[in-house]
Amino acid sequence: MHELKDIFKHISPIDSKYIKLAQQHLDQLTKPKRSLGRLEDIACQVVAITENLKPSVDKKVIFVFAADHGIATEGVSAYPPDVTAQMVRNFLRGGAGINVLARHIGAEVRVIDIGVDYDFESLQGLHPGKIRKGTRNMLNGPAMTHEEAFAAIQVGLEVAKLAKKENVNVVGAGEMGIGNTTASSAILSVVIDCEEELVTGFGAGLTSEQRQHKVDIIKRAIEVNRDRLTDPLSVLAALGGFEIAGLCGFILGCAKERLPVAVDGFISSVAALVAVELHPTVKDYLFFSHLSNEQGHTSLLNHLNVVPLLNLAMGLGEGTGAALAMHLVEGAIKLYNEMATFDEAQVSKRLET
Amino acid sequence: MHELKDIFKHISPIDSKYIKLAQQHLDQLTKPKRSLGRLEDIACQVVAITENLKPSVDKKVIFVFAADHGIATEGVSAYPPDVTAQMVRNFLRGGAGINVLARHIGAEVRVIDIGVDYDFESLQGLHPGKIRKGTRNMLNGPAMTHEEAFAAIQVGLEVAKLAKKENVNVVGAGEMGIGNTTASSAILSVVIDCEEELVTGFGAGLTSEQRQHKVDIIKRAIEVNRDRLTDPLSVLAALGGFEIAGLCGFILGCAKERLPVAVDGFISSVAALVAVELHPTVKDYLFFSHLSNEQGHTSLLNHLNVVPLLNLAMGLGEGTGAALAMHLVEGAIKLYNEMATFDEAQVSKRLET
Repeated sequence: MHELKDIFKHISPIDSKYIKLAQQHLDQLTKPKRSLGRLEDIACQVVAITENLKPSVDKKVIFVFAADHGIATEGVSAYPPDVTAQMVRNFLRGGAGINVLARHIGAEVRVIDIGVDYDFESLQGLHPGKIRKGTRNMLNGPAMTHEEAFAAIQVGLEVAKLAKKENVNVVGAGEMGIGNTTASSAILSVVIDCEEELVTGFGAGLTSEQRQHKVDIIKRAIEVNRDRLTDPLSVLAALGGFEIAGLCGFILGCAKERLPVAVDGFISSVAALVAVELHPTVKDYLFFSHLSNEQGHTSLLNHLNVVPLLNLAMGLGEGTGAALAMHLVEGAIKLYNEMATFDEAQVSKRLET
Repeated sequence: MHELKDIFKHISPIDSKYIKLAQQHLDQLTKPKRSLGRLEDIACQVVAITENLKPSVDKKVIFVFAADHGIATEGVSAYPPDVTAQMVRNFLRGGAGINVLARHIGAEVRVIDIGVDYDFESLQGLHPGKIRKGTRNMLNGPAMTHEEAFAAIQVGLEVAKLAKKENVNVVGAGEMGIGNTTASSAILSVVIDCEEELVTGFGAGLTSEQRQHKVDIIKRAIEVNRDRLTDPLSVLAALGGFEIAGLCGFILGCAKERLPVAVDGFISSVAALVAVELHPTVKDYLFFSHLSNEQGHTSLLNHLNVVPLLNLAMGLGEGTGAALAMHLVEGAIKLYNEMATFDEAQVSKRLET
């Protein structure tokens, strides 16, 4: 943990003074007070995160952390493990769901190879950051060593730093990794102390029997690693994936850099949960994008006491929900920046009561 | 009613054959089946509405029907009636919430003056269609004559026809009219046969006492007009507003022209409710955009057995929720059109079970 202390020192809560100033501005705009609902909350939060009373959300980037999982050999996914690398290629060619939605919202997609079991040549849009070609099978011990988990977190921290340096205004946190709902459910079950059955879903399309097998695998993995599950970082190392650790570091880094983060669905939320467990203030910097179809997401969001922006029964990952939420964030900021005030538009104010 | 029979004749249910074909295409794309959730339903519905297996949603227009209300003199709104005309000017200058969100999603805004109590000069973006300078006070009898209500519906039908002629791909249905939540709650209460209290909200920001006064006014208006409330059109005429009747006609016209409609919030939904009561098939052409903060909207949506796409605690009207929903509709169609298939991207398909 002590390696992260330096980061934690630089993560501060957002200042309610900015929330108040932003709300005062919103209340001058030609609309009944609070009639833009959660869009007003979003605008206030972005103002407070950036400490900028005229924030911009022009530059939007979705970071997709990709990695393979040793546990994927245990029949926990509806798809074979080589799909991770194949989908990375699909992302880089622009054919995946996240590419379409990123284009739709005017965002860029960057893929971080943090642990894919494939040797990619140098490719446009691919950020190299491989720690290892996939995690170890967590039925035989920890998925990652502490050093590996920390290295993955470091990659995420670096990506956040780079985003800030490039003047990115809002980021999306997405992922790809065959087997990663298994890792995510295992982490979630331990962190929120909840029965494995209750937080394990059908992933990319398991049958009921396959899902039961996945629950059993998760129980065994937790049992095997029981003695190691003493703190959030150790849970992440023992049961996690490189993309989850990378996203956790990325989210910590964004909080440090005061960058608003749209957290995608189930897996990204698990990474955010670990980040918040490590440093609760991180929550101030996050937008939870959507309620995933994956069982367990509701328990996670309830544990964090957050309500996601969208509920469209999606469960694709990649950052697809984050992309849609980033469009709402941008819309909220545009409303805040561009709407006329009552005075400017010469619109009568509300009647005195 | 018989004047509308000609329209009704030309409204056909969507063909499930298209839903099936669209879903088959979606199932070839590089994602687990159904993992785009409601976005997949949207794509299927647009394909079926347009009967086009490669639909486009390039051209998006939000139509804002504006009118004044005789009942507004009874202290039912937090804002004075001249705000209707002032906000129309704000729409035409681009300073209102709907303008910002329309720009954000790449849509055009057109305002239909169907009954504003003000003589506008000819203005860019303003469609003239005034039936009368506001409705009559429904405490003294019907708000509109049957002829006036029918004329307003005709304006809406014409606007839909024009949209089709201009090759608009998807439309938003929004409104502006000080006093129009009062008219809407009155109509809703009668149509779904529900206590006035349960479907009357705080509008643009009433106090609790003012809201109670609004409930009393609605009860009196319904009592005064009781004998006239025999069918949906008569309810619309007696308790409605010109913008509500115009939107009702517009929605009927869009169904006739096979144009997908994003229905905005509470007031637009009441117009849609009347249209669906007149001809249930209309529902096939509608997307309910968001759950409004206004009390009664949930009852309305439950009555129609629909779940809105968004729930952001908004209550501004103007088409602001419709704009956000239109962006989802466009995103769904882009995913449908642009995502790579498993074969194209050389991604392995799911394992046999």
